[in-house]
Amino acid sequence: MSKTIQQTPNTTISRLAKRASYDVQTIHTILDESLVCQLAFIRDQIPVSIPTGFVRINDEIYIHGSVGSSYMRQLATGQDTVCISVTHLDGLVLARSAFHHSVNYRSVVVFSKAQLVTNKTELYQALELFTEKVQPGRWAEIRKPTENEWKATMVLKFKIEEASAKIRTGPPKDDEEDYNLSVWAGIVPLKTIREEAIPDPALKQGVEKPGYLL
Amino acid sequence: MSKTIQQTPNTTISRLAKRASYDVQTIHTILDESLVCQLAFIRDQIPVSIPTGFVRINDEIYIHGSVGSSYMRQLATGQDTVCISVTHLDGLVLARSAFHHSVNYRSVVVFSKAQLVTNKTELYQALELFTEKVQPGRWAEIRKPTENEWKATMVLKFKIEEASAKIRTGPPKDDEEDYNLSVWAGIVPLKTIREEAIPDPALKQGVEKPGYLL
Repeated sequence: MSKTIQQTPNTTISRLAKRASYDVQTIHTILDESLVCQLAFIRDQIPVSIPTGFVRINDEIYIHGSVGSSYMRQLATGQDTVCISVTHLDGLVLARSAFHHSVNYRSVVVFSKAQLVTNKTELYQALELFTEKVQPGRWAEIRKPTENEWKATMVLKFKIEEASAKIRTGPPKDDEEDYNLSVWAGIVPLKTIREEAIPDPALKQGVEKPGYLL
Repeated sequence: MSKTIQQTPNTTISRLAKRASYDVQTIHTILDESLVCQLAFIRDQIPVSIPTGFVRINDEIYIHGSVGSSYMRQLATGQDTVCISVTHLDGLVLARSAFHHSVNYRSVVVFSKAQLVTNKTELYQALELFTEKVQPGRWAEIRKPTENEWKATMVLKFKIEEASAKIRTGPPKDDEEDYNLSVWAGIVPLKTIREEAIPDPALKQGVEKPGYLL
């Protein structure tokens, strides 16, 4: 049997509990398919939720930011519980009744506190894996960070210890008596695609599009 | 000149402020292009962020939920400031340096308090417009809610008074000296597409795919 995460009051899903999953592999896969997460925290007694890039390495989520960012500095203290969430919208669920219209989705919610990353090897690896997640093949050819750029960068990591996934798949579920209605029902799959890469107008002459973009 | 929203300390963007917009039309368009938002609120002193469907009508965001949902009941009191956010990831920005890698995006953040919707005409309109947003043409042919279904549904609305957008577009911005590197740079556009609709295996025989899905 695969590894599961211990449920806590924060992560126990009460609504539509059959859609919940605490399977570690499921949680990791949903996280890895998303380039950005929503990072929610409390600032002056108010919830704030912002999108930010991230990469998962083992059982930790790494987020890069600027040392000038006030929320990065706040979270770096390690005092704040944050809520990191990722949602994939996989399809529209068109039921026979308005009430049973829904969407197919895979989402993950993680509650955690930040740890400031200061180890150089770990910083380097997090940036490399983040860049390779955004575009596989990219790291080998780009200019690596200078000392000054490292000084301007803050990296936080969040342990994935308190987390849950929620998933809906499959066709609509209508009320028994509605299956006889002459209303079309089914799903409309949604998909995010990468379109053809567009060169920077300032691209140096003679530089060809790399193989990983073809 | 188009209408803008008054900035507040919560919505004043300090990092990369040139990417900020307080234009009402811009904010509405970003909201309308997204089927789901992230709804962040505070529960037991902890931030919680969950994905949920929504529809914007004029300057209000409508969210449907179950009367059995604990967070809907909490927010219905109108006491909690929530943070509603929407993010579109429009492209990968591949710069010559690791440091200037970025993404093109359009995001909106709204701070607001819920109002419970009880007026029947308003409830009906919110559900109709929400369904038509998910799939234009759908409302006319589906079975409308029964009295019992309405009793099981809670609708909250949130005024869009305190809000901001943040937008990045265009090619990478590299350091002056890096433009001479022989590294390919440009953007990879991302797009969400609707694939061909898949009929429910339990679809009544003879029911054809409606024109709006072809």
